[in-house]
Amino acid sequence: MSSTFGTLLKLSTFGESHGEGVGVILEGVSPGLELHEEDIQKELDRRKPGQSDIATPRKESDTVHILSGVFEGKTTGTPLMMLLYNSDIQSKDYNSIKDYFRPGHADFTYLQKYGFRDWRGSGRASGRETAARVAAGAVAKKILSKKGVRIIAYTYEAGGIACKSIDTTVIEKNPMRAADMDAAAQMLERGLALKKEQNSMGGIITCIIQGVRAGIGEPVFDKLDALLSHAIMSIGAVKGIEFGSGFAASKMTGREHNDAMTAKGFDSNNAGGILGGISTGENIIIRIAVKPVSSIASPQNTLSITGVESVISTEGRHDICICPRIIPVVEAMSALVLGDLYKRHEALFI
Amino acid sequence: MSSTFGTLLKLSTFGESHGEGVGVILEGVSPGLELHEEDIQKELDRRKPGQSDIATPRKESDTVHILSGVFEGKTTGTPLMMLLYNSDIQSKDYNSIKDYFRPGHADFTYLQKYGFRDWRGSGRASGRETAARVAAGAVAKKILSKKGVRIIAYTYEAGGIACKSIDTTVIEKNPMRAADMDAAAQMLERGLALKKEQNSMGGIITCIIQGVRAGIGEPVFDKLDALLSHAIMSIGAVKGIEFGSGFAASKMTGREHNDAMTAKGFDSNNAGGILGGISTGENIIIRIAVKPVSSIASPQNTLSITGVESVISTEGRHDICICPRIIPVVEAMSALVLGDLYKRHEALFI
Amino acid sequence: MSSTFGTLLKLSTFGESHGEGVGVILEGVSPGLELHEEDIQKELDRRKPGQSDIATPRKESDTVHILSGVFEGKTTGTPLMMLLYNSDIQSKDYNSIKDYFRPGHADFTYLQKYGFRDWRGSGRASGRETAARVAAGAVAKKILSKKGVRIIAYTYEAGGIACKSIDTTVIEKNPMRAADMDAAAQMLERGLALKKEQNSMGGIITCIIQGVRAGIGEPVFDKLDALLSHAIMSIGAVKGIEFGSGFAASKMTGREHNDAMTAKGFDSNNAGGILGGISTGENIIIRIAVKPVSSIASPQNTLSITGVESVISTEGRHDICICPRIIPVVEAMSALVLGDLYKRHEALFI
Amino acid sequence: MSSTFGTLLKLSTFGESHGEGVGVILEGVSPGLELHEEDIQKELDRRKPGQSDIATPRKESDTVHILSGVFEGKTTGTPLMMLLYNSDIQSKDYNSIKDYFRPGHADFTYLQKYGFRDWRGSGRASGRETAARVAAGAVAKKILSKKGVRIIAYTYEAGGIACKSIDTTVIEKNPMRAADMDAAAQMLERGLALKKEQNSMGGIITCIIQGVRAGIGEPVFDKLDALLSHAIMSIGAVKGIEFGSGFAASKMTGREHNDAMTAKGFDSNNAGGILGGISTGENIIIRIAVKPVSSIASPQNTLSITGVESVISTEGRHDICICPRIIPVVEAMSALVLGDLYKRHEALFI
Repeated sequence: MSSTFGTLLKLSTFGESHGEGVGVILEGVSPGLELHEEDIQKELDRRKPGQSDIATPRKESDTVHILSGVFEGKTTGTPLMMLLYNSDIQSKDYNSIKDYFRPGHADFTYLQKYGFRDWRGSGRASGRETAARVAAGAVAKKILSKKGVRIIAYTYEAGGIACKSIDTTVIEKNPMRAADMDAAAQMLERGLALKKEQNSMGGIITCIIQGVRAGIGEPVFDKLDALLSHAIMSIGAVKGIEFGSGFAASKMTGREHNDAMTAKGFDSNNAGGILGGISTGENIIIRIAVKPVSSIASPQNTLSITGVESVISTEGRHDICICPRIIPVVEAMSALVLGDLYKRHEALFI
Repeated sequence: MSSTFGTLLKLSTFGESHGEGVGVILEGVSPGLELHEEDIQKELDRRKPGQSDIATPRKESDTVHILSGVFEGKTTGTPLMMLLYNSDIQSKDYNSIKDYFRPGHADFTYLQKYGFRDWRGSGRASGRETAARVAAGAVAKKILSKKGVRIIAYTYEAGGIACKSIDTTVIEKNPMRAADMDAAAQMLERGLALKKEQNSMGGIITCIIQGVRAGIGEPVFDKLDALLSHAIMSIGAVKGIEFGSGFAASKMTGREHNDAMTAKGFDSNNAGGILGGISTGENIIIRIAVKPVSSIASPQNTLSITGVESVISTEGRHDICICPRIIPVVEAMSALVLGDLYKRHEALFI
Repeated sequence: MSSTFGTLLKLSTFGESHGEGVGVILEGVSPGLELHEEDIQKELDRRKPGQSDIATPRKESDTVHILSGVFEGKTTGTPLMMLLYNSDIQSKDYNSIKDYFRPGHADFTYLQKYGFRDWRGSGRASGRETAARVAAGAVAKKILSKKGVRIIAYTYEAGGIACKSIDTTVIEKNPMRAADMDAAAQMLERGLALKKEQNSMGGIITCIIQGVRAGIGEPVFDKLDALLSHAIMSIGAVKGIEFGSGFAASKMTGREHNDAMTAKGFDSNNAGGILGGISTGENIIIRIAVKPVSSIASPQNTLSITGVESVISTEGRHDICICPRIIPVVEAMSALVLGDLYKRHEALFI
Repeated sequence: MSSTFGTLLKLSTFGESHGEGVGVILEGVSPGLELHEEDIQKELDRRKPGQSDIATPRKESDTVHILSGVFEGKTTGTPLMMLLYNSDIQSKDYNSIKDYFRPGHADFTYLQKYGFRDWRGSGRASGRETAARVAAGAVAKKILSKKGVRIIAYTYEAGGIACKSIDTTVIEKNPMRAADMDAAAQMLERGLALKKEQNSMGGIITCIIQGVRAGIGEPVFDKLDALLSHAIMSIGAVKGIEFGSGFAASKMTGREHNDAMTAKGFDSNNAGGILGGISTGENIIIRIAVKPVSSIASPQNTLSITGVESVISTEGRHDICICPRIIPVVEAMSALVLGDLYKRHEALFI
């Protein structure tokens, strides 16, 4: 089913952008893990709207509520259910566009698929659905931290401006979640300029996963990079993904690309921490292409749902660059994949 | 499980590179489909070794045998089992390297994972495993052809040389499976030069899927692009994937990237035929980064399995550029994903 | 995962007896099905406590709330989430028994499995969990009714008193849900006598499924009877199940048991509507053994959780015979299995 | 999919009765387990035809061949593929019945389901398919034996004759696999008498699983008894199943049925070793109703596939009582369920 992901650590999400709320059942969490709503909330707060001038002003408190699976402050080993009620629903914002396809959105494809469309803020196709993923990912992160795994994602590039140096300690200190304060300032400036023009911008996110022991990932179909690609490509605005040397590998020779091993370890980590779909013990390096936000206020040509050529302005409350808010989602999906694959690896030896 | 892929059209593969054979069970094929071994064989022949001077001279006939699931020339609706015996096994080629990690290979990670290593030609980690995928994919292609879907993949770039124009009618007419005969000749020349140097080269494959109706793909986790990424990233040498505008989207603004709709359809297909994870009805456009072949005869630094620094030359019989032989695998995996998602889409309305 | 059931029509349940509530995500419901909370509520009302003198006086309104998956009164094709808050929680009832194993309950096994125990009314092991199944089953019933399928279950026997004739129109007219008013009166009398003795009674439920077309059920592992057994045996108090002639078949010869076919159809339906795991088009006949309620107020020998021999009286609010309240659960699980298998059957031909 | 069973220890079977062979892929076996074809063969020899005068004289050597997943005598942790070629195929035996429905067989339902029928000895519906299950079960048994689990099944009753005492040491010493030599002799005598009359007989199998630690089984849907029921009810001729007190529980009161715990353990084991779907540590007790063999040579009324009333004699080579040959299948399916649930239990704590 399309709203379920994972094998041994498995999430099932539900809820719509402008319905009552969104939520998730997470199965496979071991019993006895200390878990409080604050553990989840701090991750949700990183994803929530309204964190900067280039983010949507929609005011969702995104308050998580653990409804089942925790007893006396500890997980029970049975399904963990986490619920977030929607609070700031302004469906009327969408009234003017309910009969038109917003360019770059899933309006057209949902109508084609289901024969109707939940026009209240995209329904299941909304980015709001990712709040449920972040909640589940917060639990996965907690599991992984006990194994020494740490996941760090940052905006490497936005609006064509790339980080010149990488300092992961500054990521949470700028609204772009860039790894370079100077680049962050330029990105923000570019974003504000585009905002004035009723436009938006794309970017590139880098995700680094540290501390994964060698041997994680399954051969053939559920390779570590294949599952991470599945997980991350399932996030709305992502258009491409690469590992280690990525697309640059296509221009290299074997001698350049092969990664000699010495007593000190791998020379280049061109492999991005994964060989044959299984972790090498080196950092896992992922780069993710994010498209510019589709919702822009400037007028665009489109069709009405009855096929009449029209002009649309996507009002409502939208982000200028989605990278900073996608970062916690990328981390969450990575954590869920790794949490699952750690379990699958160890379960093989039972 | 890691050797199973798909939901309603589901394959389970088995077999090792230098064991007795490789094969696949394919479940979910509708009863009454006319199916002969020749339907499968013609796809396998495109993947098999020995097709050119830059391909491995290993002589596998790759003869497929349908062992179950067909009765009187038609599928029965029960599991289709297809088996390919290995014939040209020269495990002794591997004797000299059994105690060393080949750079760029999965030798190190398999040992870390399983605590031992099938050193006879990589076991399950070998590219030979993909023959089973191609066999299953041939059936999926047959199913899709009835729905008007056509999958075409070609080498867009190899050794740094890109196609200048795209003519899909020439793909099967040159050993690079490039879409441009001139570029193909240059790629081949570059490949032969690298062969002399005991080196290898990478490339980029483009895959175009035509005729997919709007509405295919599932929301949230099993988006069409997410599942295609899972499927294609699970092929050994692939390091990156992008859809439509891909990584280039990260540098665009919303106004540039958004794809206006007019009565004639989508303007740009920057989306690559997928919006919100669901097909738009336009061509699906995928670009795939392929790393240079890891097995090269020139000496490289490495470690022995006991951790001693050593020098290794990967002898045996290897390809210089794997793009031409990966193409049928990319097509097979794409066909399996689409066959599955067509079924999942239509099954929702039951 | 243990809280998920089904392939194409799939439910995932969550929640504990004395937590905040119980609920379910149901995936695979086709879009456009008219669905209101009343459709669900009427089934829940049949399962809820307090319907007679031999049922638990716990006062759960069991009010269902559809939280996602319905838009403008119709299903959307995306996950349906239904939630029931717990209202009448008297966890203090359980204080006196929290350090003892109640005979016939899962207290001992949960402690052995998880290393701790949610002593508030059994947590996930409580029969309250079945409310979520009934909610999902109500949707499955609605789907099936469009296919002409009707599921009828009744108490065939309780406290050793069996129905002498079968009149399915009286089932909802007596608190035992028996198919014979006279037998029902005797069962009730027997139940009240046992209640005075602080004792309880078991029974046999018959479930008849009408209108299933021939061809439903999958060969080999997911035979119709195998999946119905899985589904129904997963209901707490069930100790046995049989189809058609059932255990009586073991004493017959082939000539007696074989079911000759004539132009009028099958002669005996000894097969209970299923041959080779696939429906014949005849009524599906299931008989289900239900053990006496384990919670009785009379003192019984047991152990404390530290292994000390003790005497326990299971106070709290309990049923005398659980058959009447299990009936809607049996129907729900049967409906979910059939809804899933109808989809699986038709999906094969896509 | 219907030919796949299990979550962490998972089998996928293929093959037809009168095709080239039958086989199985088993996934999830830990690496490093010593495994030889003889380990499998000894179980297959117990299921194979021709072991007595009341068994079919079909001469299948049932020789197993391990095609993948074993390297240097040990499992690799990747898919184990086991293949059994059919040798004694006499499809012509079936020529006379290809246009008629054999009473008690799946001929009618397969035709209804698939629109055609593999008339060569039932295809996938044949009992021959269970050889693949026994092969996989032999591996599961080997895994379980390391955990101290032992599975013993025997014919408790056949042709109405029940064991008077239970001596499990004699099971393999009589062709009925009964647990009482005297009863076995009478069963055999009754079987030979029925054979003369061109008739057949049913029976009851008891299966006892010893040494399962407390805590195995999952709450809610995948209860130990629910999964065992699924597994065992999926065996062709089985019509009913019960655990512990089973159907007898329906006539008991709570006081009689509840199983007091003392320092010595459980008093009665009425629960059959399972409470709340989780093992108690006591013996697991299962009773299984087996219908009489449907294939009998005496003439019976039936329909032709075009609906004409006819008389049929099921010639070919058939068993008189299938209990002795079903016993290894019951053991195999039980072993596969327990192997899977042990893994699932331990995996929860990862």
